[in-house]
Amino acid sequence: MRRIYLDNAATTFPKAPTVAKSMVEYIEHIGGNVGRGTHFSSYTAGSVVYETRELLSKLFVFDDPMKVVFTMNITQSINMILKGFLKSGDHVIITSMEHNAVLRPLSSLSKEGVQFDVLQCDETGFLNPEIILKFIRPNTKLIIMSHASNVTGTIQNIKRIGQICKEKNVYFCLDSAQTAGVLDIDFYDLNLSALAFTGHKGLLGPQGIGGFLISTEFANEIKPLIEGGTGSLSESEFQPSFLPDKFESGTLNIPGIFGLNAAIKYILNIGTEEIRNKEKELTNRFLNKVLNIDNINVLGPKNVEFQTAVVSIDFKNIDNSEAAFLLDNQFGIMTRVGLHCAPLAHKTLGTFPKGTVRFSFGHFNTIEEVDYAADCIYKIANSQV
Amino acid sequence: MRRIYLDNAATTFPKAPTVAKSMVEYIEHIGGNVGRGTHFSSYTAGSVVYETRELLSKLFVFDDPMKVVFTMNITQSINMILKGFLKSGDHVIITSMEHNAVLRPLSSLSKEGVQFDVLQCDETGFLNPEIILKFIRPNTKLIIMSHASNVTGTIQNIKRIGQICKEKNVYFCLDSAQTAGVLDIDFYDLNLSALAFTGHKGLLGPQGIGGFLISTEFANEIKPLIEGGTGSLSESEFQPSFLPDKFESGTLNIPGIFGLNAAIKYILNIGTEEIRNKEKELTNRFLNKVLNIDNINVLGPKNVEFQTAVVSIDFKNIDNSEAAFLLDNQFGIMTRVGLHCAPLAHKTLGTFPKGTVRFSFGHFNTIEEVDYAADCIYKIANSQV
Repeated sequence: MRRIYLDNAATTFPKAPTVAKSMVEYIEHIGGNVGRGTHFSSYTAGSVVYETRELLSKLFVFDDPMKVVFTMNITQSINMILKGFLKSGDHVIITSMEHNAVLRPLSSLSKEGVQFDVLQCDETGFLNPEIILKFIRPNTKLIIMSHASNVTGTIQNIKRIGQICKEKNVYFCLDSAQTAGVLDIDFYDLNLSALAFTGHKGLLGPQGIGGFLISTEFANEIKPLIEGGTGSLSESEFQPSFLPDKFESGTLNIPGIFGLNAAIKYILNIGTEEIRNKEKELTNRFLNKVLNIDNINVLGPKNVEFQTAVVSIDFKNIDNSEAAFLLDNQFGIMTRVGLHCAPLAHKTLGTFPKGTVRFSFGHFNTIEEVDYAADCIYKIANSQV
Repeated sequence: MRRIYLDNAATTFPKAPTVAKSMVEYIEHIGGNVGRGTHFSSYTAGSVVYETRELLSKLFVFDDPMKVVFTMNITQSINMILKGFLKSGDHVIITSMEHNAVLRPLSSLSKEGVQFDVLQCDETGFLNPEIILKFIRPNTKLIIMSHASNVTGTIQNIKRIGQICKEKNVYFCLDSAQTAGVLDIDFYDLNLSALAFTGHKGLLGPQGIGGFLISTEFANEIKPLIEGGTGSLSESEFQPSFLPDKFESGTLNIPGIFGLNAAIKYILNIGTEEIRNKEKELTNRFLNKVLNIDNINVLGPKNVEFQTAVVSIDFKNIDNSEAAFLLDNQFGIMTRVGLHCAPLAHKTLGTFPKGTVRFSFGHFNTIEEVDYAADCIYKIANSQV
């Protein structure tokens, strides 16, 4: 059966063209560990790892590649920041569109005395930034939030939120899981303290590699969650205090970094503007089609200027799980149904606990695929399957 | 220049023959996330991830693939266990041959009231297991140690130590970084509570994938260090309590798991006995040669029955860093010089803080390469370079 991949918000597919090749090059022809060998292959691997820090710095308009930290995924990045930074009595602000990657660590920390407020977004998933001003307290230390929702694609006004954080002297951590590689992100212009990213979504790289960029000031206040061998200061029983070693213990995912290296070069070559325009075109086409279909409810902004290439649909006369099954089984259309690890978002949208069927487009989808998906949705919604 | 890779204790090279192919198969032809899509490619990826848990269970004679947890590396595995389990007032026992992956988290935890004793190994790096009996106290909760040293290859008597742990009702966590895939490890026969492993050393898989196997009893006492989306119980703001989800948050390193899958199949097909015999043959040849060279000091057991394929050498009349540089630069021999992230081990051996040059052989090295390395060591030690 013909298969159409519309689950790019979970992980993009296909990847940038040279990702696999770059990983194979490392595994089959280089192979050395980084910072742990006194030889050619270790140095070669190390230089590509460093270059990847430079590429990420370029993409996010950041000034110091040594403050780019690699992790396994963005969930780990966020946990390292939240659990390494927050102490009993600290207050944190999040939004009602956050992913469990933010909610679950905070729920756990709240048992140890960390306080947090969940600011209510509107029915499209958008947060009015000015609401934040009412919630900032003397003990507010951090605002952490998604740049765009993984359920509806809703893009937040992070520029204004960054200004508020600067004015109120609160750290600002951005979860770019749904936007890195697609929307412009300028670390300093947004007044970010930390930018958490994952390699396998909009950055078009492999799963298993993520990380964060961090300001010196914020990094100095964070204890390392994971400690161990760094290949540096080996004589010390304590973790080095300098970056990136402070937060990078044990062997890195070097094949993953090689893959990410190739992916970011691809993105920088094309440019995020062109990538964004293509995704807007696909999403606009899809919205125009599905907004005319009866028996479904389309969630989110329904306007490509205010969302990424993610559209959630609630089927009215068929169970959403059944609809997703039919899409895959009868039409070869791959989606994700349910709560998308974001129960708060679905409560905001009024789709909790049943969830939605999520259609998420990527750089390599085509208009023809979008049209086909809309036709199939029509058939399912109108009991023609 | 001809290059000979003798840094297999840092990461093995080359990898098992089908590792890269398996990763490419996933990246280019499957691509879906696991537990996060309602479609064919997600299910295919999920089945290979599950099969890999089964393969690891088979290799380590373990009964439940769902209690095999994937992490980024063994350092992360060890941190998750130590920091998730230990509380103020608890006492832990380690040995003087431990890696910074164990020492640094414990040093950090000691500031929060966790106590630990470092049991002194002899000059070959071996711990007399009976010493442990003198150090077990009422609050001793855990013994964590390397199966074999990454500096000297010294193999510990973990069978006896497991018996002591069982008798004294203390959890036993084994760090198999230097032995998984080479020495037989039987989870239950050794009375293990947890077995931490890494994929990129003796398991011949890629960097970026590690994990641990854990007993239900021990897992129940460990809080998850990293929390977030698991694709399960998405409606809950708290981490699921069942395995492996409790300890697996965010997207897994799926390409890494595909690579590891191929590697373990290769190992199970050959058998660890044959792998171990080959490594013994190489190490024995090397020891016989270098023990006859003047002006060097060979550390460790110097007997292949009591060590893995790792031999550390201290050059007497030339700086070890200079020797390692010459080995790489003049002879194409890749080693690792320094403390190998194990300062306690070097203190035990009397080589702190200058460290040693470490030669570590792997499954794909040859007798001829070993002979060449020994000849080059002779030349350097006798100022013939």
